[in-house]
Amino acid sequence: MKQKLSIIKIGGNIIEDQDFLSQFLKLFAQLEGNKILVHGGGKRATEFGKRLGIESKMVEGRRITDAKSLELVVMVYAGLVNKNIVAELQSNNSNAIGLSGADANTVIAVKRPVNPMDFGFVGDIVNVNTNSISKLLSAEFVPVFCALTHDRNGQLFNTNADTIASEVAIAMSQAYDTTLYYCFEKKGVLRSITDEDSVIRKIDQKSYEKLKQQKIVADGMLPKLDNCFHALNKDVQQVCIGDISMFEPEAELFTTITL
Amino acid sequence: MKQKLSIIKIGGNIIEDQDFLSQFLKLFAQLEGNKILVHGGGKRATEFGKRLGIESKMVEGRRITDAKSLELVVMVYAGLVNKNIVAELQSNNSNAIGLSGADANTVIAVKRPVNPMDFGFVGDIVNVNTNSISKLLSAEFVPVFCALTHDRNGQLFNTNADTIASEVAIAMSQAYDTTLYYCFEKKGVLRSITDEDSVIRKIDQKSYEKLKQQKIVADGMLPKLDNCFHALNKDVQQVCIGDISMFEPEAELFTTITL
Repeated sequence: MKQKLSIIKIGGNIIEDQDFLSQFLKLFAQLEGNKILVHGGGKRATEFGKRLGIESKMVEGRRITDAKSLELVVMVYAGLVNKNIVAELQSNNSNAIGLSGADANTVIAVKRPVNPMDFGFVGDIVNVNTNSISKLLSAEFVPVFCALTHDRNGQLFNTNADTIASEVAIAMSQAYDTTLYYCFEKKGVLRSITDEDSVIRKIDQKSYEKLKQQKIVADGMLPKLDNCFHALNKDVQQVCIGDISMFEPEAELFTTITL
Repeated sequence: MKQKLSIIKIGGNIIEDQDFLSQFLKLFAQLEGNKILVHGGGKRATEFGKRLGIESKMVEGRRITDAKSLELVVMVYAGLVNKNIVAELQSNNSNAIGLSGADANTVIAVKRPVNPMDFGFVGDIVNVNTNSISKLLSAEFVPVFCALTHDRNGQLFNTNADTIASEVAIAMSQAYDTTLYYCFEKKGVLRSITDEDSVIRKIDQKSYEKLKQQKIVADGMLPKLDNCFHALNKDVQQVCIGDISMFEPEAELFTTITL
């Protein structure tokens, strides 16, 4: 039987609020078994960017990572955010080890094609090094990934943290019985956007089609859920969506997605 | 017989010059056997500090690490400098993994006592986790340490890179036949400060006493060499001092220090 592995991606709202982050890290440290944390940088990069005179370049509403912005996200994601999370996990007796995709050659990417638009130093993942990650897990370390990848030619890239989480989960599913958790500001996928407790507890492919037809699931939730089904179709066992309370021992109110 | 381990500390002059750094990393990647790299941050922290409006606070000629300066060095050392070194080592087929002392709980420190002077968030090393570091080496990773430690209570510290290198070397000597290399801008310990090639090839405790009496070794070199003998007295097998040419296959011109 395969060993279990939990891969948890935390969103900006958790990283930006120190009390929230501390609560989450306590719960995360208590989770049993193999686990991996994936985080972005929240608004810290924008904040430090302003102070450094590095402005976010947006083209058609999408962020461009030029050389200066890459330096900025490397400093904020792999430095400030990652190391503070690692130090706090260590204080909770969790043997965290912080990683970019370059560390131990864990997540390899290529620069996103410049057509139809050049996003700059943004990487699309081409390979996850399951061998390196498995070695770290076997040594009882807890990998903590920030949202950076590399191309094996010395170039670092900015890569979406949701995508890192799902690609790592997909790759690790070959060797582990993997559950992917997306932890954000809502208690789960909501039936009614105005009712925070209207969490849809279970979604499968069939009910997802219905929810789409009924327009209960729409807008920003659609690509998120499409991404979940992509992971499930590639052997991730289940995907859970919720807020940090989903990691409390008796948690019930969150969304579980299966095929 | 113990396995061999090389621990190499690189100085600011190498980090600040990209061509130099690339040359060094190529040579480092080719070194055989177990190896560990330790680096500081050079002048990058001061440069970004200026841009962020964080000034270096000096008291009696010594740098104070306040909360803002700590954020800065965490970003620059563990983020910018460490991740670019790791990515470049990966491009040279060296399976580097970047670490602060918090990662894998490798280097534990306590805040330096506030008497006679409060240096702020500066840590004095109290323990090196040889178990974690050995696990990484056994898994064939190449640890790359930046100059940060932690206290296991969630606090990161700024810690001198020379000290991290020597303390890691001392601790690892119990299990490995360890050589410590200090790589800086000179070809070694010089007999004449005006002659760059007047390298003293071998120094032992006896000849060191003589060199001190003759005032051939003086000033900044004294604490450096005292630190080398401290490491040797704690079972590090040898210490080598030189510039990056010391890692060339047929290198001869550098200083080797033994008891």
